[in-house]
Amino acid sequence: MDIGYLGPKGSFTHSAACSYFSSGNLISYASLVQLIDARMNKQIDYAMVPVENTIEGSVLPTIDGIYQTLPTIQGELVLPIAQQLMVHKNHQDHWQKATLICSHPQALAQSQVFIRDHMPHAEIEQMASTTLGAKKVADQPEEIYAAIGPKMAAKEYDLVIVEENIQSVANNETRFWLLGDEPIAADLIFVQQKATLIVDLPMDRPGALYHLLEIFAKAKINLTKIESRPQKTRLGDYFFIIDLEVPEDVSILESALKQLDGQSFPFNLIGNYPTYRKP
Amino acid sequence: MDIGYLGPKGSFTHSAACSYFSSGNLISYASLVQLIDARMNKQIDYAMVPVENTIEGSVLPTIDGIYQTLPTIQGELVLPIAQQLMVHKNHQDHWQKATLICSHPQALAQSQVFIRDHMPHAEIEQMASTTLGAKKVADQPEEIYAAIGPKMAAKEYDLVIVEENIQSVANNETRFWLLGDEPIAADLIFVQQKATLIVDLPMDRPGALYHLLEIFAKAKINLTKIESRPQKTRLGDYFFIIDLEVPEDVSILESALKQLDGQSFPFNLIGNYPTYRKP
Repeated sequence: MDIGYLGPKGSFTHSAACSYFSSGNLISYASLVQLIDARMNKQIDYAMVPVENTIEGSVLPTIDGIYQTLPTIQGELVLPIAQQLMVHKNHQDHWQKATLICSHPQALAQSQVFIRDHMPHAEIEQMASTTLGAKKVADQPEEIYAAIGPKMAAKEYDLVIVEENIQSVANNETRFWLLGDEPIAADLIFVQQKATLIVDLPMDRPGALYHLLEIFAKAKINLTKIESRPQKTRLGDYFFIIDLEVPEDVSILESALKQLDGQSFPFNLIGNYPTYRKP
Repeated sequence: MDIGYLGPKGSFTHSAACSYFSSGNLISYASLVQLIDARMNKQIDYAMVPVENTIEGSVLPTIDGIYQTLPTIQGELVLPIAQQLMVHKNHQDHWQKATLICSHPQALAQSQVFIRDHMPHAEIEQMASTTLGAKKVADQPEEIYAAIGPKMAAKEYDLVIVEENIQSVANNETRFWLLGDEPIAADLIFVQQKATLIVDLPMDRPGALYHLLEIFAKAKINLTKIESRPQKTRLGDYFFIIDLEVPEDVSILESALKQLDGQSFPFNLIGNYPTYRKP
């Protein structure tokens, strides 16, 4: 079984794939476009993609790629995102003297209070990923360099974590989706069953969104997220991606979808899937 | 009168500021965070900010900065976004031989079909702005380099436009908002009067969005855009930014807002403003 993830090795999405699958062949992809295309072309059985982060909001290349390729979501996993400060083992006793901190801009932003308080004189180098930051530190052991990233990045490049959980926001989490043709359960904590819809809703059809939400409100189906994105044709044409809690009596959802159909909303149900957390 | 814009000089936002104001002191800011903060601290009278593009969707640093600082929108301007191919005048007759094309990733993406068809062998260099690409071309006249960007960038750096409107999407447009304390009309084509609301809507209040939309649907007020963004506290807490057409009888809007208040939705009206196009 081939499982693609947004790499490089040691990334948060790699962590998500490792948590979901206890076996299988994990394949790193350099970009979300390449990863989602590989799934569409059936070069891989599953793709693990980041969908939303507490701070950054939706991962737009994922949302746009899903709109274009309409894959099926087979599972959701929510992981806490913690940033670790890591150095080469030669420097673990004097990491405060680091002259350079290399990491992804998001990880740097999440750790800025720590940096300001503990390493105000270090230069900052923005890298394309946290893992590339760790690689740079590992490649130049003679320099006192530090990287910020996930635990797996330290493990991957044999660095020592000298300060744990340096990110500023306590509840920093990322949601991941597993895309694939076949349902596959994970040995994790089941939270709830969710479903996701994509609906084209031009804004020049007044009240369309209201009528759509009315169907779900009357069926007492709870929406957990609703987001609009441009169709990329002209300003004012949007699609909506809607996550909802699947009712225990699934016929309630089926009946709501039938009503949607009756109102001629062009929509796609792109998954009815379990959501998980790690133990 | 001091008007800040997202720079550098020659950027599309600079164009927007020049179109809106025939006089005034234009001040370039390097980032949207700095620009929006300068307006909040009243260091400038107005700030011109990009809000939404046909291809890229919402400009998230603008939306998030507006949520945090709650400025007042005094006007909206929609500009077509056209990309021009420009070179140093020494090379205007043999621009096809350019060895390097430098531009912002968005402009490069919008022009990729042209590049593939006409300059497949040129190297690509991603720059932080289209203007910096033009500057690089101007700084090295001995090299056959090309830049892609707006007309103003060519003017600013005395480059020659050798191919016009090379972007792939015909209706590529960007919306800009003018933020400030005082209304100010522009000598442009008036399109319509719009208003913008920001509403906190935690998703664990089921049906909240439906009840909000119901108020506007029953008042026959047309929404032109609705977007959710994270509150950045925990997954599942969102705010919505809603653009609507102001009815000719403005008391209809006032009565809808009173009903919103009555349902204890925490909201802010952040502008009731004219929208413009260029002649």
